[in-house]
Amino acid sequence: MKNFEYFNPTRIVFGEGSIAQLKDLIPLESRVLMLYGGGSIRKNGVYQQVTDALSKHELFEFGGIEPNPEYATLMKAVELIRENKIDFLLAVGGGSVIDGTKFVAMAALYQGEDPWDIVDQGLASKLKEALPFGTVLTLPATSSEMNNKSVISNHEKCRKKSFASDLIYPKFSILDPTVTYSLPKKQVRNGLVDAYIHVLEQYLTYPVGATMQDRQSEALLMTIHEIALSALEMDPPDYTARANYMWVCSNALNGLVGMGVPQDWATHGIGHALTVLYGLDHAESLAVVLPWLMWYKREQKHDKLLQYGSRVLGQNAEHPAEQIDKTIEALSAFFHSLGMPTTLTAYGLDPDKVAEEMQKQLEDEKFTRGEHRDVTPAAAAEILRLSR
Amino acid sequence: MKNFEYFNPTRIVFGEGSIAQLKDLIPLESRVLMLYGGGSIRKNGVYQQVTDALSKHELFEFGGIEPNPEYATLMKAVELIRENKIDFLLAVGGGSVIDGTKFVAMAALYQGEDPWDIVDQGLASKLKEALPFGTVLTLPATSSEMNNKSVISNHEKCRKKSFASDLIYPKFSILDPTVTYSLPKKQVRNGLVDAYIHVLEQYLTYPVGATMQDRQSEALLMTIHEIALSALEMDPPDYTARANYMWVCSNALNGLVGMGVPQDWATHGIGHALTVLYGLDHAESLAVVLPWLMWYKREQKHDKLLQYGSRVLGQNAEHPAEQIDKTIEALSAFFHSLGMPTTLTAYGLDPDKVAEEMQKQLEDEKFTRGEHRDVTPAAAAEILRLSR
Repeated sequence: MKNFEYFNPTRIVFGEGSIAQLKDLIPLESRVLMLYGGGSIRKNGVYQQVTDALSKHELFEFGGIEPNPEYATLMKAVELIRENKIDFLLAVGGGSVIDGTKFVAMAALYQGEDPWDIVDQGLASKLKEALPFGTVLTLPATSSEMNNKSVISNHEKCRKKSFASDLIYPKFSILDPTVTYSLPKKQVRNGLVDAYIHVLEQYLTYPVGATMQDRQSEALLMTIHEIALSALEMDPPDYTARANYMWVCSNALNGLVGMGVPQDWATHGIGHALTVLYGLDHAESLAVVLPWLMWYKREQKHDKLLQYGSRVLGQNAEHPAEQIDKTIEALSAFFHSLGMPTTLTAYGLDPDKVAEEMQKQLEDEKFTRGEHRDVTPAAAAEILRLSR
Repeated sequence: MKNFEYFNPTRIVFGEGSIAQLKDLIPLESRVLMLYGGGSIRKNGVYQQVTDALSKHELFEFGGIEPNPEYATLMKAVELIRENKIDFLLAVGGGSVIDGTKFVAMAALYQGEDPWDIVDQGLASKLKEALPFGTVLTLPATSSEMNNKSVISNHEKCRKKSFASDLIYPKFSILDPTVTYSLPKKQVRNGLVDAYIHVLEQYLTYPVGATMQDRQSEALLMTIHEIALSALEMDPPDYTARANYMWVCSNALNGLVGMGVPQDWATHGIGHALTVLYGLDHAESLAVVLPWLMWYKREQKHDKLLQYGSRVLGQNAEHPAEQIDKTIEALSAFFHSLGMPTTLTAYGLDPDKVAEEMQKQLEDEKFTRGEHRDVTPAAAAEILRLSR
């Protein structure tokens, strides 16, 4: 096991009806800005629940934070905060709204000239203050509600960058599984696959004697296998499955299972570029990469592929190579059972052409990822050629 | 899954050599009081490492906190704090030193007349301030280094009571697995069994659809099975096994696996009284109760006993009753493999006599425990009669 530091001070308030607790979670004397996205919260009743709970607070609002939250949009929220002396933020939404709120929390108190430096110049980890904020999660997938990371886009500068700081852990996050009832089935599917792959990026590398972290990762993966089909039930939705779906998503990337172990993140790196170039949803982009990355890296990931296959997927065989084949097939079959394709061809894309274009794109980004830092642009192209 | 609230802000600094980080974890301007126990830290080098790391801090010390930390002793530390304007505490030790420090942290800022009221009158959860403190863990077992609970004894009033408050989460805990190298084998064995039973108290009840928490509990239990014998190696000690031992103990009772599920704690309740009356070590007292409590409650715990047996102990049988028999036998065999007895008779005690005396003791305490609150003094006596 490697040395590590673990810290996660976010308070989780979990369960049906928990949005009402907002009134006690935010100090009554606060001037609160509620940030949200495209307005789905007005249709599904969450907006009403939040405003009811905060009826005695001084409440302002800022809607319109887009998927891949945009610097220019967020700076409008910063302006509104300064004008109205806001001192507490409340993100109501999924990963994009929460990521955007994290940037706003830092930018609102930033004294320097250009707030984009917080993201671009790595200032985030050096700053000393940010506005406090909480979240009401509406789309489980990213763990942003329980971690210290954020990804912000800047269209003008053609950049999409992540930053991290202990100041941007939410003070609290409210997780009410019933708010997921109005999600389209595709978004629940995406959330399940995203969380599953978050765990694999931290688990499927090479053994370092982290027995407990391995078992914890396997616990999350097995949970997703166990509840996924029930979580996709829409009519009526299954509360217990949705509760497990919501809680497993938060735990997949809140830091714990990644402590003291090597991490990969090549699938995410390649997937991000696929989303930019071809418009696949984030989870879709991951699912067309991961099985083929496993195939391509089967020697380097040999021991963990055997462990994963045997413990999580129940795949065993006399010969290790055969067990790895069966393991990768079983993973693909699991994604297919959720209605999630695992090939570029399923989206009408030509793997050879995608590989060529992506290699150029990743070379521009000076891309290297993977637990051995050996997933180069050329390697990514090889992986994508297999995705057929 | 039941509704729940989860919060755990303790920073964990984990790994060999991590005690040196103390110098950055405690503000340099602090006046620090280091609290410890009987002096074993002077023999194993931990005292030297701590004082070296804090060589530039204003450092005071208070030794002699006993196992089952005593109110009168702790009040001497409070006096020393007030005299010397101490503003940061550092517990260096195991659960007793950390529990004691938690009380001291609250009592030092308490304005009321009698600080025992913090414990006895349930004031702890209502107080608004406590001194900040960190810990250097030397004996993994209780999770006190990563939770908000404490148990304090008051010899004069013949009481031993627990209290809890979010103010007594340690600011940080340093977990260096090499500090366990000097522990007697018996203490490592006790720690493993204590952590194992902490998990079972939160797991072995009845199903509530908490798929993820079940899997997480099983992950901790399987980790202990996997590393226990290696963790007991003394010559030389096994770093990897000790690291897993240390980290699993913290995770067994830091709150996470107990979220949203019913909890039992009858074994701990009976065990505490056994320790008081017959002097068994804490873990020893648990191990002579738990297998027989499982036996006695096999109907109420039926579904979870089957799940535990199959998933954790690999015990399966055609008939459920047979599978439960095999499961309880396998648990006892596991404890025996660590050198831990599971019967009162192994300690030369007469189960019938113990049952009779304990029933009286527990009646005096108005004892009721268990996930159905049906483990009465009479039920405890029945359980103890089986322990032969």
